[in-house]
Amino acid sequence: MKIDDMLLSTGEWLKGLGPMSDIVISSRVRLARNLAHHRFPMSASEEEKIEIRRNIQQVIERTKMGKDLSNIDLEALSPLDCRFLVERHLISREHEEAQGARSVAMREDETISVMINEEDHLRLQALKSGLQLEAAWHAIDKFDTELSSFLQFAYDDRLGFLTACPTNVGTGLRASVMLHLPALVMTRHIEKAFRAIVKLNLAVRGLYGEGTEAHGDFYQISNQVTIGRGEDDILTDLRGVIDQVVAYEDSARKKLLEEESVKLQDRIWRSHAILANAHIISSEEVMRHLSNIRLGIHLKILKDIETPILNKMFIFSQPAHLQKLEGKELAADERDIVRASLIRRHMKATA
Amino acid sequence: MKIDDMLLSTGEWLKGLGPMSDIVISSRVRLARNLAHHRFPMSASEEEKIEIRRNIQQVIERTKMGKDLSNIDLEALSPLDCRFLVERHLISREHEEAQGARSVAMREDETISVMINEEDHLRLQALKSGLQLEAAWHAIDKFDTELSSFLQFAYDDRLGFLTACPTNVGTGLRASVMLHLPALVMTRHIEKAFRAIVKLNLAVRGLYGEGTEAHGDFYQISNQVTIGRGEDDILTDLRGVIDQVVAYEDSARKKLLEEESVKLQDRIWRSHAILANAHIISSEEVMRHLSNIRLGIHLKILKDIETPILNKMFIFSQPAHLQKLEGKELAADERDIVRASLIRRHMKATA
Repeated sequence: MKIDDMLLSTGEWLKGLGPMSDIVISSRVRLARNLAHHRFPMSASEEEKIEIRRNIQQVIERTKMGKDLSNIDLEALSPLDCRFLVERHLISREHEEAQGARSVAMREDETISVMINEEDHLRLQALKSGLQLEAAWHAIDKFDTELSSFLQFAYDDRLGFLTACPTNVGTGLRASVMLHLPALVMTRHIEKAFRAIVKLNLAVRGLYGEGTEAHGDFYQISNQVTIGRGEDDILTDLRGVIDQVVAYEDSARKKLLEEESVKLQDRIWRSHAILANAHIISSEEVMRHLSNIRLGIHLKILKDIETPILNKMFIFSQPAHLQKLEGKELAADERDIVRASLIRRHMKATA
Repeated sequence: MKIDDMLLSTGEWLKGLGPMSDIVISSRVRLARNLAHHRFPMSASEEEKIEIRRNIQQVIERTKMGKDLSNIDLEALSPLDCRFLVERHLISREHEEAQGARSVAMREDETISVMINEEDHLRLQALKSGLQLEAAWHAIDKFDTELSSFLQFAYDDRLGFLTACPTNVGTGLRASVMLHLPALVMTRHIEKAFRAIVKLNLAVRGLYGEGTEAHGDFYQISNQVTIGRGEDDILTDLRGVIDQVVAYEDSARKKLLEEESVKLQDRIWRSHAILANAHIISSEEVMRHLSNIRLGIHLKILKDIETPILNKMFIFSQPAHLQKLEGKELAADERDIVRASLIRRHMKATA
């Protein structure tokens, strides 16, 4: 698979088709694994990292899942292509910024990706649209079981799986759900909800994970604790909280529709108007308006925009996507113009 | 003339038809006059104010101009109707807020208005669209001459006409020009220009004169000095400065069109989009967007909106106008909804 081919699609996770997709964008489960008898990537020599990668790649090819995965070595990629993969949520920012032999293997539909030599030797990720934590977990668990029949993972009987960072030791499991919570933001209930979530040992983050801010009312909720509990318990706890947050958001939306209908119309139609008419626009501003458009679609206030168009605007208005589409590097102010033009075209296509 | 009839029109001054109307909204000349042998309104008793008004009204009826003037006693008006006249620039805020016997006489086309018992016994005003200082001056000078053949004005051979406030003594003349200066604001040259203007003993003010802020890049420039110089000199000096400001604004617009064309398109189309789609909007925000629309019309970026529609939105989106149109008093948040709906209707009519 070539990166340029990915310009024709948006990835399964953003299709907006899964369960509870009016509020839940996507569900992600990842496992951190390391090979026994090898140093973690941060302390391994370049030769050792090359050897680790070769071992893992050969094993992946022998798995059933492996037949559907394409491999990309990151050190051979341009910075723009690397950033493109980050924007697709196929690799992490840390993986992008690391040095030396490292790679990603991914399915064409982008539901499975495997990072090799990120912080750990292996990061297995399943990403699905809507609330599909269990399905994501089963896919990645099966793959992990297959791999473990060929590879000896670093494992301690008392601690569980060993990882480069202690926050992943044990199960190596991080499950996260990306939510769209505009009504909780508008009704100012979001902070109270988040305070409760943090007390339950869950983390709340922005669109691109750790250290990123929330844009356009999109938030990720994930487990913090990876040790002392089984995978099923971790997932069940997270699922319970997500169900509650979804119910809160749902009732906040109903309340807004009943009590603040004009305010809602104002907000949604202004965003619609700006996207259809701006000639210069930043990613952050696009995200803010797309959030309102998404809400407008699900509240049936906007009837002329279909979800696939919304998702295309969402993903293709990002900096690296824009530059790949244009076929050249663009400065930030040039991107703001190209982005506005792309968005106007998509908005016209909907009218 | 009834105030409700004025809901059918916008007044000549806002028609945008006069000379240099791409930059000059309107020209205003007013004369302050007081009757000899009477106290100024602020120190006169109610009986004396009634007598003063009766005298003046009787004289006005005997003048040629008087035949075209309709009289309205302000103390008989509702606060809403009073505010309506302020929004039309037919009376001042001071006249609105004063107490007791006071009135306004005005022409149906709103080019002439006479305030009786404002700060002075008489304030004669001519208001014309575009740059028509001379025409406004001639109209008001002629009327003043007519009145002075029937009335004895308070006059001192050394000082000139006597007025309640020393800043009007001498000619009693205040000439002001309302300008639309968006390009000077965008290119950040406006403050430099205003500093130069103030050094020339001219004043710069917002849309409603003294003590008001500029909204939507609309500014008034007027003479400060009323004594020690003849009327013609005062007008010539003001006219000279206005010509220069108009030339600056014109060249700033050309420069923007050449060098910042996308930024200009962005600004103008965003305003167009918001006015056509907002469901809640304040007067200030409307003014800001109408300023961009006005610029867009004159730069030929917007071709679907005609100036009369623009002017209607400008005048009818004001609080008292809105309430008169709706036929009832409205709280600020109710007005913001009614205003958005009015503006959307007008914007649709243009498309």
